[in-house]
Amino acid sequence: MPLARISVPAALPAGKTRKLADAVHDGLVATCNVPLKDRFQLISVFESRCMIIDRNFPDVNRTSEASIVEILFLEGRSVAQKTALFQHVAAGAIEAGFVGDDIMIVLSENAPRDWSLGCGRSYGRNHAPDGSASTGSRQ
Amino acid sequence: MPLARISVPAALPAGKTRKLADAVHDGLVATCNVPLKDRFQLISVFESRCMIIDRNFPDVNRTSEASIVEILFLEGRSVAQKTALFQHVAAGAIEAGFVGDDIMIVLSENAPRDWSLGCGRSYGRNHAPDGSASTGSRQ
Amino acid sequence: MPLARISVPAALPAGKTRKLADAVHDGLVATCNVPLKDRFQLISVFESRCMIIDRNFPDVNRTSEASIVEILFLEGRSVAQKTALFQHVAAGAIEAGFVGDDIMIVLSENAPRDWSLGCGRSYGRNHAPDGSASTGSRQ
Repeated sequence: MPLARISVPAALPAGKTRKLADAVHDGLVATCNVPLKDRFQLISVFESRCMIIDRNFPDVNRTSEASIVEILFLEGRSVAQKTALFQHVAAGAIEAGFVGDDIMIVLSENAPRDWSLGCGRSYGRNHAPDGSASTGSRQ
Repeated sequence: MPLARISVPAALPAGKTRKLADAVHDGLVATCNVPLKDRFQLISVFESRCMIIDRNFPDVNRTSEASIVEILFLEGRSVAQKTALFQHVAAGAIEAGFVGDDIMIVLSENAPRDWSLGCGRSYGRNHAPDGSASTGSRQ
Repeated sequence: MPLARISVPAALPAGKTRKLADAVHDGLVATCNVPLKDRFQLISVFESRCMIIDRNFPDVNRTSEASIVEILFLEGRSVAQKTALFQHVAAGAIEAGFVGDDIMIVLSENAPRDWSLGCGRSYGRNHAPDGSASTGSRQ
């Protein structure tokens, strides 16, 4: 929580994939109040025939390293936070050698009551008793 | 955007998988105002022990080619559009040799502000400035 | 419907993975009115470098068997049902030999109109004609 799914092409070197994963988490920490240790990421590697991505839609130029980052996290982040998240993740990826256009990011949301981080305990019940996302630190 | 995840059994020939992916995108273009080039698909292949699918629930007859199509796209499509999408995708799959009952489709939604299609730019900010999904062409 | 995605480490024995999948479905049946045959699960196996999971956040102790269960199902379950689901799945996993802290569960929701279980038929149209999730048995 957040849970990030990072889909990369098989051609991408493992070291670069890891740097993308780092950029994703750094972005969440820097812009969305996610604690540093609150890191949950699943990385999937796709053969090119299994990753059908338009090279130019809508106004970008993707390469064979085009990757897709999906993040599921708590509802309540502002448009400004999401915009900053996109910029931060892309900047980190560019620093790691990616072309900025190769980083696609997609966000989905749920609520505290939708997470159990272990042992069957409800996150909403244990960490956000009212079940709302309106508490201070969102994760 | 949309982002489609297509999960198929290992037994399915690659050519048939591609035709299913084509049917999914054709359906989105035909029924949901998705631009032709707005294609983003991830295909995952599952061993049979990793794809646990009831053969008959609720009133269908699935075969060993049963596949699952998940589509994440912008909120705002009508029930009629979704119904037409289901029909269109299934019809395309049947034309490609699938049994209609083998095509399960699941939709999830988010908002323009939840997408960055490249370079850290927010789709909501650049393409739908008010952050709503009420613009003409949804993707 | 529900659709469960179960992500496990490559080190986990296949038999134990299956028991986790069973625990997930048993939990849905026991707590969320899901029919026994309404089972749709996708299991993905990750190399350790592709599954980046903090060992201790927020207050647990995960092992190398830490797994992530994502469930997409119909909106409308109560907090009490979700809490009971978490407890039931974790209890089943513990019975199968897991450490409770190794079971992370994440829920997402959609509506009856977002599902087609086969042949292009809309679930909302065929099984919940008003398109709402307020019918008796939710799946």
